[in-house]
Amino acid sequence: MLDFEKAQQIVNSELESYSFPGFPAELYDPVRYILSLEGKRVRSALALMACSIFSDAVHQAVKPALAFEVFHNFTLLHDDIMDNSPIRRGEQTVHEKWNPNTAILSGDVMSILSYRILSESEDEHIRDLIEVFTTTALQVCEGQQLDINFESRTNVSVDEYLKMVELKTAVLVAASLKAGAITGGAGPLESDLLYEFGRNLGIAFQIRDDYLDVFGDSKAFGKKIGNDILANKKTFLLIGALEQTEGKVHDELEGWLIKQDFDPDEKIKRVTEIFKNIGFDRISSDLASSYYEKALQYLERINVPSERKLPLAGFAKNLMERDQ
Amino acid sequence: MLDFEKAQQIVNSELESYSFPGFPAELYDPVRYILSLEGKRVRSALALMACSIFSDAVHQAVKPALAFEVFHNFTLLHDDIMDNSPIRRGEQTVHEKWNPNTAILSGDVMSILSYRILSESEDEHIRDLIEVFTTTALQVCEGQQLDINFESRTNVSVDEYLKMVELKTAVLVAASLKAGAITGGAGPLESDLLYEFGRNLGIAFQIRDDYLDVFGDSKAFGKKIGNDILANKKTFLLIGALEQTEGKVHDELEGWLIKQDFDPDEKIKRVTEIFKNIGFDRISSDLASSYYEKALQYLERINVPSERKLPLAGFAKNLMERDQ
Repeated sequence: MLDFEKAQQIVNSELESYSFPGFPAELYDPVRYILSLEGKRVRSALALMACSIFSDAVHQAVKPALAFEVFHNFTLLHDDIMDNSPIRRGEQTVHEKWNPNTAILSGDVMSILSYRILSESEDEHIRDLIEVFTTTALQVCEGQQLDINFESRTNVSVDEYLKMVELKTAVLVAASLKAGAITGGAGPLESDLLYEFGRNLGIAFQIRDDYLDVFGDSKAFGKKIGNDILANKKTFLLIGALEQTEGKVHDELEGWLIKQDFDPDEKIKRVTEIFKNIGFDRISSDLASSYYEKALQYLERINVPSERKLPLAGFAKNLMERDQ
Repeated sequence: MLDFEKAQQIVNSELESYSFPGFPAELYDPVRYILSLEGKRVRSALALMACSIFSDAVHQAVKPALAFEVFHNFTLLHDDIMDNSPIRRGEQTVHEKWNPNTAILSGDVMSILSYRILSESEDEHIRDLIEVFTTTALQVCEGQQLDINFESRTNVSVDEYLKMVELKTAVLVAASLKAGAITGGAGPLESDLLYEFGRNLGIAFQIRDDYLDVFGDSKAFGKKIGNDILANKKTFLLIGALEQTEGKVHDELEGWLIKQDFDPDEKIKRVTEIFKNIGFDRISSDLASSYYEKALQYLERINVPSERKLPLAGFAKNLMERDQ
């Protein structure tokens, strides 16, 4: 059995020792750079933990785990170009440190490298691994596209938002777990149950992340409160509030979205009050909990001695209880 | 047996009937768009022709053929962003018709789609196909990076140039042939011979393309003569001439590269004269022929009745004799 910290360590050490190509340096230096930034290695660590539920031969899951990690970092690299973000994990993004063309091409090569690493997995699982990996990779692109679409739309529904979160974030977590389970020898039912655990946990995480950005304790949350409000980010709270309000309250909320000159603290204060007044602090917190509970139910149904599931249950609990 | 035109037809009809995903439209419309532009389908047609050397069941090569075609179009899509090209195959490029972010993300999804299509190949060949596909895809990115590097360098050697051409252009042609051969049941020796045929033919093609841009018949060549000279493009001719000249001639050539105000016709005329005076019309023409001859030697060594190789030999001959 493997807890999250131990799994992270394995991932970091395997990433460090993996022999990425070196020439041309202009192509592969950015790959090494983004992989060297301090990431939490959530997807890859979960793949190893999923494998360890079914087998003690965790090394079988290393290649799929690294493939998911490299793919995830590829999506960050290209997302950062699209969002024009200067900082990632406290350091310069690749397109800032080098330039956008370098970031495009290095991202392209990372996407292919993730298949190279995945294809180094053991023969008996290769077809299933490629199937879940490819399906998920397409979904992640679809989720990113939906997210981009939402930026220029004012009528996004909560259902659409949840679908976007599922595609952009949750399925990659889910698929990493499933891939780990497959290499650990889990059958289709067991690996699908872990997939559903991950999918629901991923959605719960994102709703809670939206919640914490408004209602969290800034010290514990580790970033400034209200950033999403200032950026007019289409979070669960904003989309839900726009959907659920009408009349004066709706108009005030929309007013804050288009206002150019404002006192940031006042905007955060007033929008937070609107969310609270219509009960969206509780509603979003409850929704996150309900996805979390669903995730745990899927985990429970997996037919192995329950102590083998403790590390994953513990990881999920920590994830949901941060900032408390 | 399958000639190039028939192979093209199969590719186009299979591409049209392939069920690409549709949602979100903003993601997949550009994919359909670039694939609908009139391409020559060289790589995919060659995959089918390679299969037909060894087997009459050409349908076995359809999935790998489409995978290579989709991957090639993905590279065009991203290359066009990097080169800031407005036109591709006579139509607007994706980043012009939509925007750069759309072009990045649609390209990303095409890269993954090419693996999706490849993984629909028959089980017995899947591992070999993924191996040759992935190795080649990485090399194509490396070739593109070398090409980018060359733009800002003044001391590129002919050897470096040939390596770049091999990676950026020739290996994808070679790998398409090899993949087709694999699905046709060719053994490792036979499929490697076809790979070498394609690799040498690809290099021959590029050197000849550089030659025709300067010394071709503009009507037959189908584009204006001298474009590469005006754009200071690092072709075989320019790189070779910079390497082979010294003193006054070298200085004059370098002068044309940095000159901002000039009469285009005069620049084309003078640079062409320099190439001719140092014998580079003949040298480049001879070098293309020598790669072509090498390609044919590899084709000859393939152990099947020689009439089965006629379509590929005919394709190569046409390729080398265009504009004559």
